[in-house]
Amino acid sequence: MKEAVIAVVYPDIDTFDEHVEAVLNMVPETRCFPGCIEAHAGINRTRFEIVVFHLWESNDHLERYLVWRADRGDLDARSATMRREQDFRTFSVP
Amino acid sequence: MKEAVIAVVYPDIDTFDEHVEAVLNMVPETRCFPGCIEAHAGINRTRFEIVVFHLWESNDHLERYLVWRADRGDLDARSATMRREQDFRTFSVP
Repeated sequence: MKEAVIAVVYPDIDTFDEHVEAVLNMVPETRCFPGCIEAHAGINRTRFEIVVFHLWESNDHLERYLVWRADRGDLDARSATMRREQDFRTFSVP
Repeated sequence: MKEAVIAVVYPDIDTFDEHVEAVLNMVPETRCFPGCIEAHAGINRTRFEIVVFHLWESNDHLERYLVWRADRGDLDARSATMRREQDFRTFSVP
């Protein structure tokens, strides 16, 4: 079954633009990762929130992607300047 | 600019399957609505949550869609049996 990810990111306000740039740069890489069907990022400058939406062919593909991101340190780099922990949720897509 | 919507729905536990069916039935209609680029629904049976993700050509297209849904009463019908208010957020997509 396909797997969707929604992650809402809450950067420190003074690092918001850097987070936006970093997240937007990650999207094309994510789309090229094996098993990725869709990847989009959205910005809300009123609430200072960034959302990432991914759709994967399976949970296994998603898990391999997350290990790859963790190994590169991409997620640690971002979480150092967040005003609260990101809201990361997965869902099965029939 | 494109506009994304993320809505997380928290149905009453005993109406969860009915909500899943109703939300899944709405997705093909949403995809056919003018200006809709993407529409997906995901299910999490551990947290009893349903997520809806839409991507629209513009905020105007999204607004027209929401008016159409409201006029049909689709959203009222669902909200009557939710254990908490849905989390509805919009984002600009560069």
